Amino acid sequence: MSTPDTSVAGVPPTTAVIGAGISGLTASKMLDDYGIPYTTFETSDRVGGNWAFGNPNGHSSAYRSLHIDTSKHQLSFRDYPMPDDYPDFPHHTQIKAYLDGYADAFGLREHIEFENGVAHAERRPGGGWDVLDQRGEHRRFDLLVVANGHHWDPRFADFPGEFTGVTLHSHHYVDPRTPMDFTGQRILIVGIGNSAADIAVELSSKALQNEVVLSTRSSAWIVPKYFAGKPADKYYRTSPYVPLKWQRKLVQALQPVTAGRPQDYGLPAPNHKFFEAHPTQSVELPLRLGSGDVVAKGNVARLDGETVYFEDGTSRDVDVIIYATGYNITFPFFDPSFLSAPDNRIDLYKRMFVPGLDDLAFAGFAQAVPTLFPFVECQARLLAAYAAGHYALPPVAEMRRVIAAETEKYTGHMVPSARHTQQVDYFLYEHDLRTRELPAGRKRAEAAR
Amino acid sequence: MSTPDTSVAGVPPTTAVIGAGISGLTASKMLDDYGIPYTTFETSDRVGGNWAFGNPNGHSSAYRSLHIDTSKHQLSFRDYPMPDDYPDFPHHTQIKAYLDGYADAFGLREHIEFENGVAHAERRPGGGWDVLDQRGEHRRFDLLVVANGHHWDPRFADFPGEFTGVTLHSHHYVDPRTPMDFTGQRILIVGIGNSAADIAVELSSKALQNEVVLSTRSSAWIVPKYFAGKPADKYYRTSPYVPLKWQRKLVQALQPVTAGRPQDYGLPAPNHKFFEAHPTQSVELPLRLGSGDVVAKGNVARLDGETVYFEDGTSRDVDVIIYATGYNITFPFFDPSFLSAPDNRIDLYKRMFVPGLDDLAFAGFAQAVPTLFPFVECQARLLAAYAAGHYALPPVAEMRRVIAAETEKYTGHMVPSARHTQQVDYFLYEHDLRTRELPAGRKRAEAAR
Repeated sequence: MSTPDTSVAGVPPTTAVIGAGISGLTASKMLDDYGIPYTTFETSDRVGGNWAFGNPNGHSSAYRSLHIDTSKHQLSFRDYPMPDDYPDFPHHTQIKAYLDGYADAFGLREHIEFENGVAHAERRPGGGWDVLDQRGEHRRFDLLVVANGHHWDPRFADFPGEFTGVTLHSHHYVDPRTPMDFTGQRILIVGIGNSAADIAVELSSKALQNEVVLSTRSSAWIVPKYFAGKPADKYYRTSPYVPLKWQRKLVQALQPVTAGRPQDYGLPAPNHKFFEAHPTQSVELPLRLGSGDVVAKGNVARLDGETVYFEDGTSRDVDVIIYATGYNITFPFFDPSFLSAPDNRIDLYKRMFVPGLDDLAFAGFAQAVPTLFPFVECQARLLAAYAAGHYALPPVAEMRRVIAAETEKYTGHMVPSARHTQQVDYFLYEHDLRTRELPAGRKRAEAAR
Repeated sequence: MSTPDTSVAGVPPTTAVIGAGISGLTASKMLDDYGIPYTTFETSDRVGGNWAFGNPNGHSSAYRSLHIDTSKHQLSFRDYPMPDDYPDFPHHTQIKAYLDGYADAFGLREHIEFENGVAHAERRPGGGWDVLDQRGEHRRFDLLVVANGHHWDPRFADFPGEFTGVTLHSHHYVDPRTPMDFTGQRILIVGIGNSAADIAVELSSKALQNEVVLSTRSSAWIVPKYFAGKPADKYYRTSPYVPLKWQRKLVQALQPVTAGRPQDYGLPAPNHKFFEAHPTQSVELPLRLGSGDVVAKGNVARLDGETVYFEDGTSRDVDVIIYATGYNITFPFFDPSFLSAPDNRIDLYKRMFVPGLDDLAFAGFAQAVPTLFPFVECQARLLAAYAAGHYALPPVAEMRRVIAAETEKYTGHMVPSARHTQQVDYFLYEHDLRTRELPAGRKRAEAAR
């Protein structure tokens, strides 16, 4: 059993947090609560990371029209409620204002070194960290918290052949005029996640006179943001007291009433059952497909000049391909031989700890359902308890066993895909941490004193 | 009992049809089928009327993004099915192509005088018509069919005070660049019909950076275009065998599951129950309201310069007011003292005949639910049977009695409003015509011979 070495002796570990997005901010806030000395490194001049539209550090994937896909009732941090006057599904500008409010309310800015990210982090032989910051200074910390996000390094599909038109990633899409003029264009969008759906809907507006084709390999179940007048996510909350398999069966049984089959809208038949992969939340995409404004296609077979050949044998000439194919998990400050996430896979105990490295913690490296917001806040609680010595990790072998079991629990039912390696159910995770993991870790910490 | 005088003698009446939109086209087709000599007068150079986007005669209200709000399964004429490859909710360009196909398939163009509308029509003392066409020629007809449509003469709300910004009617809205540049504007949309909803959704796209407020006096129930993956109108078909009151109760009971209460989205509480007034079909408006992109307000109290004061005591400065407040029923070719439709009210037997005027028929003057398309085809059948002498009208007193009873049946449950004067349920209307009215009229015609 381990806690950071220094805190065993009652001295809290000096801590470096990489990033001031939602994960870095909540981590910082909780460290602050527990009196842990910490510094937050942020490459940008502002907080918010992905939610800082037009973030000068290039790490925001927000497009101008982006609204959160989870209703504010689920989204809100437990420690800092969303303003009452916010709409059900806030715009990114409102999320950013909320995060600014969070940073101000808890005095986080004075600990953030803006425009000073971590260029390199190296673990010292006996533990602890040598951190080289962007300004070129060498710094030492006992504990390193990686909260640099996983929605900023574009992942592309690798199709055979060569495409001679414009290739873009959804990360760089801003609006129908930016980064290029999307009017009168023949556009192929690859992918069927929320970004793919939003961009397809926006660019297929008849006013823009584009032709929009959407290609998907695995297809997706499309769920509405509203059901019977309430945000749809108000109806669903995983229970820790009912077997997960039964709950999945129930949701699968209700699915036809809420959304219908993707084939109804001309999409390929999904290669998975409802809830076996992340569904796409879009009210508008089914309508656009049913109106003929967006044409659905299966997977791309190959590219040749301006022509895209699909696996069904058809082809289309297009001017632009937008890859809405997700993101790589990347740690540019680590030597890849030390730590990386090939195929977006990184095995972490409670999605936070690498077994055997007790001075390193990750925050926010999950695809939490329904949303990352309260999830990262929950992780921050465990992090701070750990840094303060109130929580100790179990032995390495036990951690490895739990990682395997939980990976099976959360993602075993899913299509193997780089997109789903990090899938976690927030409600179950939160319940486990609060009722089991934190009390057990406290006992372990006390036993070690 | 009456039929047009000439047909009693076995000579079919020479007939003038005013307009080559859906009502004029179906009327023409059926007259042709029955061998009635007819001429169709059309002010434009093309067929399609309202569905001819950018119609040079100014009578199309179609905006660039307009899709039909009824699925093609309900929309299709019975005599001319929609192409199989059409999407569920065709675009206006597809509807126009369908109407062109209809005109070609039945050889209607040779009877249409394009760019030659009816300037004036006057009933001769002994019956029959003096028609002055746009070219200045005087023409004579035995029977006049008015099919000039009721979605082309903009109706405005009359608010106290003066507004100094731009005032537009939805009739003139084309797209976010036409007839003006709708970017960075503060926009008030008045009304909550389908056009109001579509325009509010289109202009509130964050990419345009407008502020959009929607004001409604009576509010509306909003129903989706899709339910459980199928066009919503596939589920609903009024039955002639179950009391209408019960059917309305059933629909009202199911309403919460399909759409929720308008108040859920910030709209005012409707001043009517579900199905007591025409619901608005929009998948996207509830989402835009719930995302804060469109702000809902109640009725306008008064206008003053750039400021709009609402009945709830709040106010907003706006640059543009778009009135999506419907249309007047106007017959510019009639002397108003002869016939007009004050407050859009015109009492017609079977929505076609003015009691006492047996050489005049109207086509398409209804707000048919779910759609006007098969409805006008159904009216055309009655019209042609009448012109051919296979159908005779009942006595004037009986017609008046039926008009009163049917107005109560179709609109008695509705909010009194200029919008609902013409409400008709297509399924019941069609069933009545086919099983009762046509056979009864045939008997009357035979008895009169």
